[in-house]
Amino acid sequence: MTESPRPALVEGHAFEALDWQEVTVEGADWAIEMAVTPRVVNSSGALQGGLLATLADMVAGTALMRGSDPYARSATTEMHVSFLEAARQGPVVATAHVLRRGRRTAVVRVDVRDRSAGDILVATATLSFAVRRAEGA
Amino acid sequence: MTESPRPALVEGHAFEALDWQEVTVEGADWAIEMAVTPRVVNSSGALQGGLLATLADMVAGTALMRGSDPYARSATTEMHVSFLEAARQGPVVATAHVLRRGRRTAVVRVDVRDRSAGDILVATATLSFAVRRAEGA
Amino acid sequence: MTESPRPALVEGHAFEALDWQEVTVEGADWAIEMAVTPRVVNSSGALQGGLLATLADMVAGTALMRGSDPYARSATTEMHVSFLEAARQGPVVATAHVLRRGRRTAVVRVDVRDRSAGDILVATATLSFAVRRAEGA
Amino acid sequence: MTESPRPALVEGHAFEALDWQEVTVEGADWAIEMAVTPRVVNSSGALQGGLLATLADMVAGTALMRGSDPYARSATTEMHVSFLEAARQGPVVATAHVLRRGRRTAVVRVDVRDRSAGDILVATATLSFAVRRAEGA
Repeated sequence: MTESPRPALVEGHAFEALDWQEVTVEGADWAIEMAVTPRVVNSSGALQGGLLATLADMVAGTALMRGSDPYARSATTEMHVSFLEAARQGPVVATAHVLRRGRRTAVVRVDVRDRSAGDILVATATLSFAVRRAEGA
Repeated sequence: MTESPRPALVEGHAFEALDWQEVTVEGADWAIEMAVTPRVVNSSGALQGGLLATLADMVAGTALMRGSDPYARSATTEMHVSFLEAARQGPVVATAHVLRRGRRTAVVRVDVRDRSAGDILVATATLSFAVRRAEGA
Repeated sequence: MTESPRPALVEGHAFEALDWQEVTVEGADWAIEMAVTPRVVNSSGALQGGLLATLADMVAGTALMRGSDPYARSATTEMHVSFLEAARQGPVVATAHVLRRGRRTAVVRVDVRDRSAGDILVATATLSFAVRRAEGA
Repeated sequence: MTESPRPALVEGHAFEALDWQEVTVEGADWAIEMAVTPRVVNSSGALQGGLLATLADMVAGTALMRGSDPYARSATTEMHVSFLEAARQGPVVATAHVLRRGRRTAVVRVDVRDRSAGDILVATATLSFAVRRAEGA
């Protein structure tokens, strides 16, 4: 099976600059590893905050569409990110934990760690989603 | 004077996909307009949430570095975004209002509106920054 | 008609310590004024943060239940508060603006100002609610 | 030693309605247990959201002032709370984990669980603080 976390993108889509891949982290509902390359850093050389938020949004949304009790659709309604340390080395690993799986809404926590920098926590995020299960589910 | 809100980016930087420009909005401390192109939308054709967060971060950070009482440095510490409506048409206009200009911290509100869709509010964000004034300022 | 923003409380309820009343603020969907008394301050003499959050929650929730298009029920799902300045004098005025009136969810912004301290903004909050309209509405 | 987490309160302070006590939770930096009494519930019988936020603020702030590396002063600057389930039975236990112990700022996560309702997570919060260490520390 060749299921992919990324739908096809138009050429030149912002996501093309993001070098990420699915990884397995014990206890997490979903995890993505992303390289800290020159294409995603800010002028001081650290992972740009909005792109870190993009990573958090991606891993949280994917966590809701996978696993034993997946949703058919999800749309982010709220995003809160606390930036704790600059991520300069990487790769960073973003892990998602679904905190609430409701019928219409879901809440996911995402922690982002810098693997090269002693696995320190560089950011933590809480995201809320409007969700829908598949028809007949 | 050729001052630019965007530093030089490496080729292929994620920000190259963002088609934005500074605009003037009365009462706002800073404003940026961005096109909703295929390069920044998600699979349902709306401006991707993380990229909207990137836009909010950009306009808020720039607002702090400009104007009559600018900071010399700023780093985002917290970001909260409420996504109210999908932005499908655009361009969107993100306006920044600095709510607090402290010695070490600043808080900025950003509202994002879809100009083609009756100027509706598509998102509102509150961002906090660790800041530093220029030496001797 | 003697409709009241506060339901009857048991004796000794925490809300008894809150000395608030409805006020009219032009342009706002709802507004409440609250005195900064010794019963609601922290050890440094400023309005305690959690009680300010309580005030924000109250004025936002009430705004959704009133006006020309009221909901029958609402429950807070997310609350984000930025504390900008200490409120030491008061009274403070909390104004609510409904940013989104959806079928199932609503988002409200609340600004809190200290009237005695030059009307400065002491806090700003964004709250999300799960809502329900009256049957048949 | 008779150190107390609560300073003396004026008679009738809102906090008098809160029936809490320190508890020990393995792995947590601080924990408080609070009863869900009629004095802290809303009209639908669940722990009122603002008072839950008050509890989160209390346990987070106290966590920063205790332990092996305590701060001398702290003031809440940001508070984000996700309300996941209604807390109707209680007692609830709020546990604090300090995520960042910086020189000037700190970030704390607080999880609130309902002990009688299968220990379910009823809310999660992230709080930021402006902090100061003791002189000479």
